[in-house]
Amino acid sequence: MCEANAYLLEKNDRNTENQTLIMEAVDKVEPEENGIRLVSIFGDQKFIKGYIHSLSLVEHKVFIKLNDKSE
Amino acid sequence: MCEANAYLLEKNDRNTENQTLIMEAVDKVEPEENGIRLVSIFGDQKFIKGYIHSLSLVEHKVFIKLNDKSE
Repeated sequence: MCEANAYLLEKNDRNTENQTLIMEAVDKVEPEENGIRLVSIFGDQKFIKGYIHSLSLVEHKVFIKLNDKSE
Repeated sequence: MCEANAYLLEKNDRNTENQTLIMEAVDKVEPEENGIRLVSIFGDQKFIKGYIHSLSLVEHKVFIKLNDKSE
C-alpha cells in the first residue's frame, strides 16, 4: 500500500509554515466545487475548501492549502 | 519506496479523457510560477504548465492538468 498522510500548510506568526495532519492513509484526492475531497484507504472522507499544494511521496506526504477566499 | 507515476489528463474528441504518462517514479511535486515541477526518485526534473488535478495513491497515480491559458 502506498497511501500518504495529508497535511494542511498554514502560515504562522513567525511567517513560517505549520504542517497540521488532517488525514492519515489517504488514497484518493478528487476535485469538487470550491475544494477537494480526501478519501482514505478505510473509506473515510473529508472535504476541504482548499487545493493540493505539493507532494513528497517518498515521505508519504500530501500538502494541502486552503483557498484564499473562504466563500 | 512509494513514488507514483504522473499522468497528463486531456480531453479527447469523444469528450472523454486520455491519460498520458509524463513521468515515472515521481517523488516530489512543487509549485512554481505558472506551473509545477516534478522530480523523480532518480533526480530527473520536468516542468509542466499545469497543476495537480487529483491523486489515486494506492494505484500510484498522480493526475496533472494543463493550465487553461497557455501564456
